[in-house]
Amino acid sequence: MVKFDKNLLTSMDLIIRKGTQSDMGSVLKLIKELASFENEANAVELTEKDLLHDGFGENPAFKVFVAEIENEIVGIALFYERYSTWKGKAIHLEDLIVKEKHRAMGVGKLLYSKVMEYAFNNNYKRVAWEVLDWNKPAIEFYESTGAKVLYDWNVVQMEEKSLKVFVDKMNS
Amino acid sequence: MVKFDKNLLTSMDLIIRKGTQSDMGSVLKLIKELASFENEANAVELTEKDLLHDGFGENPAFKVFVAEIENEIVGIALFYERYSTWKGKAIHLEDLIVKEKHRAMGVGKLLYSKVMEYAFNNNYKRVAWEVLDWNKPAIEFYESTGAKVLYDWNVVQMEEKSLKVFVDKMNS
Repeated sequence: MVKFDKNLLTSMDLIIRKGTQSDMGSVLKLIKELASFENEANAVELTEKDLLHDGFGENPAFKVFVAEIENEIVGIALFYERYSTWKGKAIHLEDLIVKEKHRAMGVGKLLYSKVMEYAFNNNYKRVAWEVLDWNKPAIEFYESTGAKVLYDWNVVQMEEKSLKVFVDKMNS
Repeated sequence: MVKFDKNLLTSMDLIIRKGTQSDMGSVLKLIKELASFENEANAVELTEKDLLHDGFGENPAFKVFVAEIENEIVGIALFYERYSTWKGKAIHLEDLIVKEKHRAMGVGKLLYSKVMEYAFNNNYKRVAWEVLDWNKPAIEFYESTGAKVLYDWNVVQMEEKSLKVFVDKMNS
């Protein structure tokens, strides 16, 4: 099972809480930090305005938990609802990001646990996410918590540009 | 590009339309047919009542297009909204199912195209779904339409039972 280094964390006053509108700048920074780490910095087209618009109106498109240490957002877990035609309502964990200098302190595990607790308390039937198949430490952690990596299921994506090409050809 | 066998289809009066409440019995049948084909018949816990409740209230959890031939539902494309922290609002195509005896007639391609058109017309930034890595005909078709299979990304799931075990241990 997951072990939290509680001494380390409590000594630094770590808070896990729901993200608010004023956190979206920090949330976007973390999203961009992860994209840079994956050599995909330019792939982030989302702006702070988008996050504010999409996450805080009626029917918000996502929810986010933030990890805060001394007024600094050091990690996020961003998620939203999905639907399984076998099980029913599910949660998708889109992003679990911890700032580089705050890793290996249990922040990620606490955010992960918070999402699982949220899903359980709200009667969701499943939590799903995606992992790079070479990310062994992540996979080991997920499996240690009872999650299953579906090694024969791959993600498929039709991006905006290809979507336009496809629909244009369809209608021509 | 996708070629539709229009002669075959028009001769049989195929209609692609939004699914309604009265279609949910047929939709569930198709979901169960696919699960049986995957040797997972017992994995479908969803009922017609669930589909009616989840798909047709305020904030429906999914949308569905149905393919109808002579008043029979022969295929479905079930989808819902997701959120990419790089691109913004996206569509997830959860199920694309065609009844066995109606396959290879272009019904699946028409349903697929309908979802892509819906995503494009409603300004979604991406359509995503999942595929079994050994399903070569499906992968070939997807790639021929401009979609990309992310071969190094695997799906991870925490199912309800494991979720309970995890949360119970967390709080003990």
